[in-house]
Amino acid sequence: MEIVTELNDLRKSRTALPGTLGLVPTMGYLHDGHVSLVKQAKEENDHVGVSIFVNPTQFGPNEDLSRYPRDLDRDLKLLAAAGADVVWTPTPEIVYPPSFQTYINVENVSQPLEGKHRPGHFRGVATVVAKLFNAFTPDRVYFGQKDAQQVVVIKQMARDLNFPLEIIVCPTVREADGLAMSSRNTYLNADERKAATVLYRALTAAKASFERGERDAETLRAIMSTTIAKESLAREEYVSAADPNTLAELNLIYDRVLLSMAVRIGKTRLIDNFLLP
Amino acid sequence: MEIVTELNDLRKSRTALPGTLGLVPTMGYLHDGHVSLVKQAKEENDHVGVSIFVNPTQFGPNEDLSRYPRDLDRDLKLLAAAGADVVWTPTPEIVYPPSFQTYINVENVSQPLEGKHRPGHFRGVATVVAKLFNAFTPDRVYFGQKDAQQVVVIKQMARDLNFPLEIIVCPTVREADGLAMSSRNTYLNADERKAATVLYRALTAAKASFERGERDAETLRAIMSTTIAKESLAREEYVSAADPNTLAELNLIYDRVLLSMAVRIGKTRLIDNFLLP
Repeated sequence: MEIVTELNDLRKSRTALPGTLGLVPTMGYLHDGHVSLVKQAKEENDHVGVSIFVNPTQFGPNEDLSRYPRDLDRDLKLLAAAGADVVWTPTPEIVYPPSFQTYINVENVSQPLEGKHRPGHFRGVATVVAKLFNAFTPDRVYFGQKDAQQVVVIKQMARDLNFPLEIIVCPTVREADGLAMSSRNTYLNADERKAATVLYRALTAAKASFERGERDAETLRAIMSTTIAKESLAREEYVSAADPNTLAELNLIYDRVLLSMAVRIGKTRLIDNFLLP
Repeated sequence: MEIVTELNDLRKSRTALPGTLGLVPTMGYLHDGHVSLVKQAKEENDHVGVSIFVNPTQFGPNEDLSRYPRDLDRDLKLLAAAGADVVWTPTPEIVYPPSFQTYINVENVSQPLEGKHRPGHFRGVATVVAKLFNAFTPDRVYFGQKDAQQVVVIKQMARDLNFPLEIIVCPTVREADGLAMSSRNTYLNADERKAATVLYRALTAAKASFERGERDAETLRAIMSTTIAKESLAREEYVSAADPNTLAELNLIYDRVLLSMAVRIGKTRLIDNFLLP
């Protein structure tokens, strides 16, 4: 497995890899969710590239950029074991040199949900992901369903800008008690860790109602909110039952629905979602 | 020479062209300036792709989108003779389908000069050019120095977003009397056509002063303004003596200078520039 820092070295490594390339963009501090993406990429492509970069432009001024967890040695061992061929670990100065001034806005689908609570977040995501697309020139790029809106934004950008690649979305990987794997779970203390299952419990309760035939989106949102309210360490930021393509809130569910939420557990902000049916 | 409309057909044509590809993006109604770009692209690459697309997103609401000149049959004959291998002539609906919502902003260098007088212009340019980059996946892309700020914006975007290609800038091609070739010259009546040489005359006067040792940028701007003011059919929109990289107006010229201007000749808006020395 090659590990490169400079863009030019990545281009050389890329040129030396014949056949198809699968790319897995990450911010490091890898968990089983990331590993599942690398393994699927390895199955579906001749080679796999991974980026590890905590992208400053997708963090707001009051967010957790400075304390975002990092463990590069452990990450590289996991990636080597999962079959990655090349890992790019650029510095912020390489990705954003002093003269940097180009940003990509995906206008409509970036507005609600995470976009509303994290202004500028998806501008940073779209911009860095476009840079990764052009740096790796992959055939397929792998993202987790855990970040549901990110997937919608990136699919829209790839289509709108004619990127010659396929976006592959892989299922959320969960702990035994249902908590979606996330690098940010490391922020949780023992009590918070127990309370954090509330996202999965709220989604599961709304799903059960949907499966019993409930098609009123407001009722599903109320079920999620009620579940979150009962958990004393949790504070709801939003709950949503939205169209999976436009992310507009639904009234009546005719077809599919994206149930999603952001919840504060203490100071830690967690997100999760179910795509139904 | 292949002529394709759908993006998928372009991708097939592109895949069938081995070796390097040079791309020449155009809005059609081709003149000798465009032809010179195609010929240089042909010399420097195994194959040449050309796009013909009058890009609506780079026109303001009061600009000349609806009357922009078109002559596809003539364009295709000129391109075949110049050695183009594939020509993409997409419809507006192909480039901008109803769900389209992604735009690229190159922030600083898009602000002054043309950007100030044509708000949103370079957002449209950057966005469509990124789409062309991804549609053709060229090795080299050819632009004319005539659109000096466009060149700066596109170079900045290509660098900032890691596009794996080289931007090649070719000299402005001029009529015998110095008028820079432009599809918009066709708007000029006989009297206006004579007056239109004022851009070249103003640039030439400022250049002569520079070559005599003048390094005060304001003096050069004044020389250009005075020349334009003497031409009764001409109305200055702006004159500039700017840093060629940042496009910031200069006071004292230490190194190179981009002299540029936009001038109305009757209802027709023309631009031109000299890069000195």
